[in-house]
Amino acid sequence: MPLPLTFLSDFGLQDDFVGTCHGVIAGIAPGTQVIDITHGIRPGRVLQGALVLANTLPYMPAGVHLAVVDPGVGSGRRALALRDREGRLHVGPDNGLLLPAADRFGGVAAAHELVNPAYSLQPVSRTFHGRDLFSPAAAYLAAGVAVDELGPSVDPEGLVRLEIPAPELGQHRVRATALLVDRFGNVALNLRRDQLAGGELPAGTRVELAARGDRFYALAARTFADAPAGELLLYEDSYGSLALAVSGGNAAELLGIGEGAELVLDLGAQ
Amino acid sequence: MPLPLTFLSDFGLQDDFVGTCHGVIAGIAPGTQVIDITHGIRPGRVLQGALVLANTLPYMPAGVHLAVVDPGVGSGRRALALRDREGRLHVGPDNGLLLPAADRFGGVAAAHELVNPAYSLQPVSRTFHGRDLFSPAAAYLAAGVAVDELGPSVDPEGLVRLEIPAPELGQHRVRATALLVDRFGNVALNLRRDQLAGGELPAGTRVELAARGDRFYALAARTFADAPAGELLLYEDSYGSLALAVSGGNAAELLGIGEGAELVLDLGAQ
Amino acid sequence: MPLPLTFLSDFGLQDDFVGTCHGVIAGIAPGTQVIDITHGIRPGRVLQGALVLANTLPYMPAGVHLAVVDPGVGSGRRALALRDREGRLHVGPDNGLLLPAADRFGGVAAAHELVNPAYSLQPVSRTFHGRDLFSPAAAYLAAGVAVDELGPSVDPEGLVRLEIPAPELGQHRVRATALLVDRFGNVALNLRRDQLAGGELPAGTRVELAARGDRFYALAARTFADAPAGELLLYEDSYGSLALAVSGGNAAELLGIGEGAELVLDLGAQ
Repeated sequence: MPLPLTFLSDFGLQDDFVGTCHGVIAGIAPGTQVIDITHGIRPGRVLQGALVLANTLPYMPAGVHLAVVDPGVGSGRRALALRDREGRLHVGPDNGLLLPAADRFGGVAAAHELVNPAYSLQPVSRTFHGRDLFSPAAAYLAAGVAVDELGPSVDPEGLVRLEIPAPELGQHRVRATALLVDRFGNVALNLRRDQLAGGELPAGTRVELAARGDRFYALAARTFADAPAGELLLYEDSYGSLALAVSGGNAAELLGIGEGAELVLDLGAQ
Repeated sequence: MPLPLTFLSDFGLQDDFVGTCHGVIAGIAPGTQVIDITHGIRPGRVLQGALVLANTLPYMPAGVHLAVVDPGVGSGRRALALRDREGRLHVGPDNGLLLPAADRFGGVAAAHELVNPAYSLQPVSRTFHGRDLFSPAAAYLAAGVAVDELGPSVDPEGLVRLEIPAPELGQHRVRATALLVDRFGNVALNLRRDQLAGGELPAGTRVELAARGDRFYALAARTFADAPAGELLLYEDSYGSLALAVSGGNAAELLGIGEGAELVLDLGAQ
Repeated sequence: MPLPLTFLSDFGLQDDFVGTCHGVIAGIAPGTQVIDITHGIRPGRVLQGALVLANTLPYMPAGVHLAVVDPGVGSGRRALALRDREGRLHVGPDNGLLLPAADRFGGVAAAHELVNPAYSLQPVSRTFHGRDLFSPAAAYLAAGVAVDELGPSVDPEGLVRLEIPAPELGQHRVRATALLVDRFGNVALNLRRDQLAGGELPAGTRVELAARGDRFYALAARTFADAPAGELLLYEDSYGSLALAVSGGNAAELLGIGEGAELVLDLGAQ
């Protein structure tokens, strides 16, 4: 039985990119179960891809974890297969995409550069390594090929790391960044409950919020239904981030913000 | 062999919600075949989800039918597993989503509230019951756990039911509601052919139509190609509803309407 | 073991069309692996569907290849199952959709019209042959039913063929057509490198380009990273077509064009 294979990318579903990779995998490792985590990462947004991968891999069966958000395709950036300290395998470009997820499983135990032509489609195109290089590598790993067969080992310390924006934490004021915005308009911040003074935000607390120069009030709440429809609320989302939502509405639209936007929260304004 | 599992939601595909649920299912019940009916239900539109589920389950292999359109997540609403009179199992929130589909199979034979923590992910988050509660329950059912293991039985009569808008049927005039609008702009009405006086609408009949105060003419037809390109037509769609389409075009755009819109049809205007 | 089954359509993923077809296939041929190539073909765009199918089938495991882009559903157009000269099976409407792909495998060896009611859902609706006619036929083929069971053979010479626009090739000037535009805004032309005088376009060549009356310059390059961010580049894409991209941007937006647009390239302007 091949290992389960998960797949995340910025390919979208309107074109054939994802389907073509599925075809390649099925040809190399028939019977592999492929779980599509999402292909809706915005084009080229490596940080978004890395954060979603880190959030979701703990919910995925252990196996091979393929991820392709790769604006540097065809340039000098390396192509990687990693083994983390719990034995999961990660395949993707050396642009920081894979590391936050691997860190969830103890960090990188071994890293290999994908250069063995026996485990890619030949010739490798210059613009679709998802099809020609990454999917084949992931499929061979799922079929049982050892990771060190794929290419020489490289120093895990030398891998590209992303900078994840950190919040500025004051006594009452916190400067935070919108990390992820989902289809419902919910906005996950780079902030976790245990980073707040006091470690908690009692339900019903009123929080003043500045975004794009405008001022808003959010109600600390435990779930969407805790606030009246249309009301902005601040809650701990299902991946443990503090997040903003509008009950029955769309917080990103209300606030007029997207990923990367800065917000200032005033937690002493209760 | 696990039972087949179908999955419908309003999660969309741009985020990881659907993929994460797939991961949870694969972890609990490896080898389960998951058929994604659609995840394109508009956010929070329980009625749309219920209608699509009822339309499509007759085409799905019998098994476990997971559905999550759940604007009340985290509130007091109950989480359910149902068995219908033909033995199919349905999992989702107690907000009316599941019942029109269960009615297609004789109605609810047994209902259980999902409260047994052995069959959920712990802790259950307050905002993503699809991942923590509904997907695990569906996966355990697919793996063969009996439905009454999941929690105490509840009275099927007490389950929340949706009100499905009914048409007002006059001699010649019918007031109908747009129930579903699809990608092609085809508009399914809350009206079936056998509700019309005479039980039929001969091809070629000209029907006067009022929508948003504007007046249109539609041609009764059997298929899109029966009308010239650009022409509005009234036909029986593949799920048995009367519906409006534009040959080679988009009826919802032409009429300027969406789901929930009211229309008046004058069938005597031939 | 059923044969692998690939599936391409213009159904989109927001409605239930694709999921319903998956359900029908799973009911007829349990255990079939279905690979969704894409369902993002623009509604009714048969040429786009045919080109994507021809591009991608070489990457798919041999089996049954279901394709539905079918604006003429319910009209007199025939429904087909084809066997190509390498033994792959193709199912879809007789509107030209299947032939460019079959040509990749030596052309059509046998063609059959889908008229045997034993291998469709009864009654066949007038507007959803994907569900009632094509998916069942593909599923029965995957399960091992012989293609000539599905209906009488028809003359492959009589099948509908699409006209694929050809480039006008001058000494230095080439008039080309945008065939495919993907999510990244990359624009594939109806032009291959071996059609250029000299057979090649050295990296770094500057190409003058006219589109919609505007004038642009593109840099001949091998991959996106070969040009500075924001720069238009002309490259050979991963399916072997010459294509336009913007490094880190969207060429279709920059040029203001979509599929079917004409462009004039001046290759002597270096």
